[in-house]
Amino acid sequence: MPELRQDLVRGNWVLIATDTALKPRDFPINKNGVKVDARSDFCPFCEGNEAHTTSELASLRENDSLPDTPGWLIRTITNKYSGFRLEGELEMVEDGIYQSCNGLGQHEVIIETPEHGVEFHHFSVPKIRSVFQMLKDRYNVLAGDERVKYIQIYKNRGFLAGASLEHSHSQILALPMVPNSQRGIMDYYGKKHQCLLCDILEGEKKAGQRIIKEDEDFVLLCPYASRFPYETWIIPRRHIPHFGEINDKELENLAQVLYEFLQVMVAYLNDPAYNIIIISAPVNIPDVAGYHWYLEIIPRLIINSGVEITTGIYMNPVAPEIAAQIFRQNLEKSCFG
Amino acid sequence: MPELRQDLVRGNWVLIATDTALKPRDFPINKNGVKVDARSDFCPFCEGNEAHTTSELASLRENDSLPDTPGWLIRTITNKYSGFRLEGELEMVEDGIYQSCNGLGQHEVIIETPEHGVEFHHFSVPKIRSVFQMLKDRYNVLAGDERVKYIQIYKNRGFLAGASLEHSHSQILALPMVPNSQRGIMDYYGKKHQCLLCDILEGEKKAGQRIIKEDEDFVLLCPYASRFPYETWIIPRRHIPHFGEINDKELENLAQVLYEFLQVMVAYLNDPAYNIIIISAPVNIPDVAGYHWYLEIIPRLIINSGVEITTGIYMNPVAPEIAAQIFRQNLEKSCFG
Repeated sequence: MPELRQDLVRGNWVLIATDTALKPRDFPINKNGVKVDARSDFCPFCEGNEAHTTSELASLRENDSLPDTPGWLIRTITNKYSGFRLEGELEMVEDGIYQSCNGLGQHEVIIETPEHGVEFHHFSVPKIRSVFQMLKDRYNVLAGDERVKYIQIYKNRGFLAGASLEHSHSQILALPMVPNSQRGIMDYYGKKHQCLLCDILEGEKKAGQRIIKEDEDFVLLCPYASRFPYETWIIPRRHIPHFGEINDKELENLAQVLYEFLQVMVAYLNDPAYNIIIISAPVNIPDVAGYHWYLEIIPRLIINSGVEITTGIYMNPVAPEIAAQIFRQNLEKSCFG
Repeated sequence: MPELRQDLVRGNWVLIATDTALKPRDFPINKNGVKVDARSDFCPFCEGNEAHTTSELASLRENDSLPDTPGWLIRTITNKYSGFRLEGELEMVEDGIYQSCNGLGQHEVIIETPEHGVEFHHFSVPKIRSVFQMLKDRYNVLAGDERVKYIQIYKNRGFLAGASLEHSHSQILALPMVPNSQRGIMDYYGKKHQCLLCDILEGEKKAGQRIIKEDEDFVLLCPYASRFPYETWIIPRRHIPHFGEINDKELENLAQVLYEFLQVMVAYLNDPAYNIIIISAPVNIPDVAGYHWYLEIIPRLIINSGVEITTGIYMNPVAPEIAAQIFRQNLEKSCFG
């Protein structure tokens, strides 16, 4: 079982695999990029290879095929490498000045398609909607367990976005504690008794220059303090803390706006690696009024250097005002304009 | 001039280049790695190409050659891409709920050798010592400016460590504010009135299992909450907040232990990308008693994925106890044993 250890310098947590140690050959990269010889042609996420993964937790199937057999459209399994288990209680261990806890939690992989090589941005709108429906369902299942305090949904597309397998998938990590990384949201609420994201929506509407597109339910924009070149957020208009509270109409519209945006983004940025990340309120804690879920799309065009790793201060060579203008114009010129 | 903008979600700062927007072709990578065609053979850091860089701020020269001409061993210039300037005063600008300030600061590049292709870990001990002497001198010059509040020294080696140029160099970034990333150090001091790093040294000596090597002045160890596989710290025994206070004997010994460690690390990990980072106290602020400078060596074997980017919770598949044992054994087996 892995340990979550507290990083006293940074005040955050690190997940450590205490019982394995990968050898250098297990890291398929050298100083400049991928070592091709470390790759294998076998993909455990492909249809027909169900026996090579952990048992499925949920699936979308178009027929009455059995779990862990072919016939699925979307398939959710546990990530066997991280070793989180939603069993027993949280055990905090003190070791001198250090603190750790057991890996109480769950780490799930949503295999989004049986077909290898079909990428998320190739999916149709109804297909994207089905993936988000699965993510919503899993979010709510995990939020129903009181031991879970925070749920992170994320997608790594491409090696430079941290993907270790090419086959299109998303991940959900349910943690027994709230990471400190989004503390600004609560700080803002504590000071102003206002939702930060609602205030951002209001302010951006007035400013205008960073908004890419709006519809009835969502606003697409490049954030004021974009950490990454061409970083884009999709913010729901409705103030709801949890992604799990998204309604059917919003799911429908989210799939539509994300589909349109991804076509334009992937074309303009020449097929980049990217992450899609859903920021949502902590769960099973009393006060979440200051939270407002939203989605981040992060093209990975730059490798984080020593300065970002250590200071957390990102250096972004593309102003969000310019990125938003480019995306806005390209969306207008596209068939979605 | 760039802007430092406050990231309200994360409570940190982002440096935005407001007057340029790099186009997709300016990012020499695709989803899987480096696009070879984007590279150029011309290196502005090579001897003879001094006219292609900004004017030198300092240099180590073995003869009486003139600034910005050949004949140097180490050469310090300003990083022309980030656009920081140590001119005028800090100007905070409020824009609705947002806050930004001008890029008041300095970003320097230390070109460590005139020879292209000679890497930091190829340097002799006296050569490494000269580089650290230059870093110390520049640190103290920058710390002498009251507008500077924090100085980050870092080195990016290899594309996957964020290096945009291959030619061996380090960087110093002087900022007008203290980043929030090492807040744990002050939290610890506030609670215990003890230096975190001194307590780590004491605790690790008792535990033993994460120490790689000790000498009179330094302790090499793999930290308890290592964020990266094979992450290693070099901690000075003497409690001094600022790297700029390092004495001659310590400089000598630091060069020696770092040289030995890098030979073993680079050989064992098959020539990885790596960062070297110096964590030091904020400058020109009243109370720095809780700070204790130290150096981090971070092999970059894994790409940060969506989960690390957003939660700050790193997933590390190599336990530091095992990494320390490997390095300890390999050092003992080496000619430095």
